[in-house]
Amino acid sequence: MFFEGSEKKVEVIIKNASFSLIDNVTDEFWVELVKRANAKILSCIQNKYCKAFILSESSLFVWHDRFVILTCGVTHLVNSVEYFIQEQGIECIEYLTYQRKNEYYSHAQLSCFGDDIKVLNKYIKGNALRFGEMDSHHTFLFYKQGEHRVQNKSYELLAYHISEQASEKFINPNITVQEIRRFLQLDKLLPDFLIDDHIFDPYGYSVNAIKDDKYLTIHVTPQAESSYVSVESNINLIKLSPLILKVLKPKSFDLLSFNEVEFKALIKQYINRQYVSKSLVEQQLKNGCNVHFANYVLPQHNFITATVFDLLEDHNEL
Amino acid sequence: MFFEGSEKKVEVIIKNASFSLIDNVTDEFWVELVKRANAKILSCIQNKYCKAFILSESSLFVWHDRFVILTCGVTHLVNSVEYFIQEQGIECIEYLTYQRKNEYYSHAQLSCFGDDIKVLNKYIKGNALRFGEMDSHHTFLFYKQGEHRVQNKSYELLAYHISEQASEKFINPNITVQEIRRFLQLDKLLPDFLIDDHIFDPYGYSVNAIKDDKYLTIHVTPQAESSYVSVESNINLIKLSPLILKVLKPKSFDLLSFNEVEFKALIKQYINRQYVSKSLVEQQLKNGCNVHFANYVLPQHNFITATVFDLLEDHNEL
Repeated sequence: MFFEGSEKKVEVIIKNASFSLIDNVTDEFWVELVKRANAKILSCIQNKYCKAFILSESSLFVWHDRFVILTCGVTHLVNSVEYFIQEQGIECIEYLTYQRKNEYYSHAQLSCFGDDIKVLNKYIKGNALRFGEMDSHHTFLFYKQGEHRVQNKSYELLAYHISEQASEKFINPNITVQEIRRFLQLDKLLPDFLIDDHIFDPYGYSVNAIKDDKYLTIHVTPQAESSYVSVESNINLIKLSPLILKVLKPKSFDLLSFNEVEFKALIKQYINRQYVSKSLVEQQLKNGCNVHFANYVLPQHNFITATVFDLLEDHNEL
Repeated sequence: MFFEGSEKKVEVIIKNASFSLIDNVTDEFWVELVKRANAKILSCIQNKYCKAFILSESSLFVWHDRFVILTCGVTHLVNSVEYFIQEQGIECIEYLTYQRKNEYYSHAQLSCFGDDIKVLNKYIKGNALRFGEMDSHHTFLFYKQGEHRVQNKSYELLAYHISEQASEKFINPNITVQEIRRFLQLDKLLPDFLIDDHIFDPYGYSVNAIKDDKYLTIHVTPQAESSYVSVESNINLIKLSPLILKVLKPKSFDLLSFNEVEFKALIKQYINRQYVSKSLVEQQLKNGCNVHFANYVLPQHNFITATVFDLLEDHNEL
């Protein structure tokens, strides 16, 4: 059964230092915001700095001055942005990015990126860019105009076609969260982090991890023919990539970073040389952010057989 | 302005040796068949063995016992197959393949491959396969059940992101067909072929070439951000690939062949070593055909800037 793992993602930073998105906003607000995207909240962990929700489709993180939401599947995340604006007011938004990566089955989505930014444009003046080639992995990015003072670093590592062994591990209906945590080596990846995770039926695994204001989230769509694992964090995923790639052994992966000015030096130092870079993009945004995108592939030397197209599975059950 | 260069393709071979698709079928039939796909015939060349039509969206080749049609853009090629079946009868079809490669903007298409084979399944028992990864270049193939006696060889070379120089050449509004023929080195590629070609407004170039029962067709979508050139033929494109790749200098290309049993040896001998193989697929079909698919990429070492997403151009004008 196919599942659209590709995410849409929003980050919003608010202006008002005396207003807290944790203390001054009710959980009912976040429940409704998530609902507007056609998703729901499954669980929550919290520390002094951050509240992390696992969603039916990915995750929501809320800090005092910002939130990050990512949703996969057939969700309509732009509706959540619209809800936020309607409830909290457009004037409270200091910084906004809306990202959408290329989907496997874009024709099954409720909207395309062009539709989404038409909605955003009703409220927000912004610019839109594409990172990566149209015929390959790419991410569309819309961002609000106006320079932003603080440039926080964030990272995405998106892995495609994980090893058969990894895929089988996640597809096993009897696997426990403890076994998955061990397999992903979360203790090494995330020492002393507070962890919340969820196994989905029939397939899929999500984990949110927080420590002080740091977060890391992993979402696994393990189906062998379209396996996809997204890792998103404000801790340095380029430095963690050797461990992540060793565990997942993907045939291909993308790296995306905001404000990692050492990106080029870091990829030289940390990316496994077996992978070759297919696409490398660097862009200084007008809001002050610096964005890097890199797509890597593992050269193949052996022929495999074609994949049976199952009309019911591949087409209808989206 | 974006144009969907990705093709759908049908090959049909008929059973009745005493019936000729050239001699016993009127041009009006082909006009109507092409029209059913939302395309139209622009011109025609002919020899004793083959009739070749340039279409508003790609090409149609008709031999006495078979035809091949390819259409790009927002066409509905499965309707042409349905028209052929309704007019000529399902019982005359010995062999049928329906191919569809992944589109740039699949959400703007009138149907997806799953929809199309639902239509075909009403008339034809068949099997469907995918060659290539879901997150990268891939081709879906539906083929009629039943072993076919003669296995003709055919080839596709699909080139992505041709060099800036090549792209600019084709985008130049003053370029002539003679200049394009020289640039593509058609005299070397196709010595003694009868040639018919067409420059499209605002962009695009199509050429049909025939010699005896041999054909080769090239379709160029030159727009820099999504440039795409398809070359399809029943002459050996693997052997011609050094010349084609030298002219176009694509960042990536796919090779697809039917019944080229020497595929592995040929790619070893002819494919430029600068390219690395990202995907390699080999499949013996139940109808007796042997199919190979290979996707190559040119490793990139320099960072480029992101691409501005133009709402009007990228989204509306499909």
